Amino acid sequence: MIKDRLKKQLEFMIELDKMKNLYRQTYVLHEDKKENDAEHSWHIALMAFLLEEYANSPVNTLKVMKMLLIHDVVEIDAGDTYRYDAEGNKTKAEREEKAAQRIFGLLPDDQKKEFYSLWREFENCETNDARFASVLDRIQPMLLNYTKGGISWQEHGVYSNQVKSINIGTDEISESLAEVIKNIIDDATDKGWLKI
Amino acid sequence: MIKDRLKKQLEFMIELDKMKNLYRQTYVLHEDKKENDAEHSWHIALMAFLLEEYANSPVNTLKVMKMLLIHDVVEIDAGDTYRYDAEGNKTKAEREEKAAQRIFGLLPDDQKKEFYSLWREFENCETNDARFASVLDRIQPMLLNYTKGGISWQEHGVYSNQVKSINIGTDEISESLAEVIKNIIDDATDKGWLKI
Repeated sequence: MIKDRLKKQLEFMIELDKMKNLYRQTYVLHEDKKENDAEHSWHIALMAFLLEEYANSPVNTLKVMKMLLIHDVVEIDAGDTYRYDAEGNKTKAEREEKAAQRIFGLLPDDQKKEFYSLWREFENCETNDARFASVLDRIQPMLLNYTKGGISWQEHGVYSNQVKSINIGTDEISESLAEVIKNIIDDATDKGWLKI
Repeated sequence: MIKDRLKKQLEFMIELDKMKNLYRQTYVLHEDKKENDAEHSWHIALMAFLLEEYANSPVNTLKVMKMLLIHDVVEIDAGDTYRYDAEGNKTKAEREEKAAQRIFGLLPDDQKKEFYSLWREFENCETNDARFASVLDRIQPMLLNYTKGGISWQEHGVYSNQVKSINIGTDEISESLAEVIKNIIDDATDKGWLKI
């Protein structure tokens, strides 16, 4: 007989399938479709161990990967809020907290605490691990968008300064990745993909 | 100036975006579309830490997650081979080895070795970590397919004994997950979703 604990875990895993239908503003590179949260989370979790050497201070890679794999599950209830959507961002925290309570609440108590705590650490973005995870979460859509001719920046009329401002402080976490971000912004601005 | 090493790593990361366009035989639950390799890999890497307690012998969760995040990248060149496609499976190993050499060959040498070694360990399926990873790789599409009325088994006319045979030995790795698999097969057979 399958224990109640395992049943809860499998129901959580089935619930999370909805991540495959949550579309972001970024496009995938080789097809005319927007990226979904499951694809995005896979990509950045892989980048966590591909690029861990670029953290100025060593990170706990296992923890960073766990955070990145689950950081967007709250969007199942709260929806995706585009980084440059000022209105949506006003209510984002409240909507996401409620979502976290319901979704992680599907799990057995000990794992509810563990998963909630990983998500909260990521959201608060204060620890070295969370800040490194956040850099990866930001640089991945920039790399895709840049490789695809700045398409979603242009669709949304994003300004160079908006991208700069959300990336302030990246050099404190990773000098090398901050340099990549700087180069992308400068070149995308030169090319007219970001507004001045 | 971005170092050559980091450039290679970013090119690898961009190349891997193709995983989002490699469709499997399994359907996602909440939309009429097949699952792709990126989505599948995200789901099972998350299951690795969600369900690690069910490994009969403790696993190295970080390693299991890394394996699962990259185990399918060879399909970028070699394509997806359905588990019950006898012809395709004859040439699978050779096609995938060649793909691994090219794709991991995009990385700096030390990481080429590391990533190739993780992939090879998964493919050989001899270590406890690789065998646990393989159980997750098999149980995830079964859970989706079962939840969606056995749709891809029915499309391909899969027999109950075929599913049983690829899951032989699961109890040596995880008694609890072997029980889940047994229940799924028995019930799917009773319902006529798997042929007798």
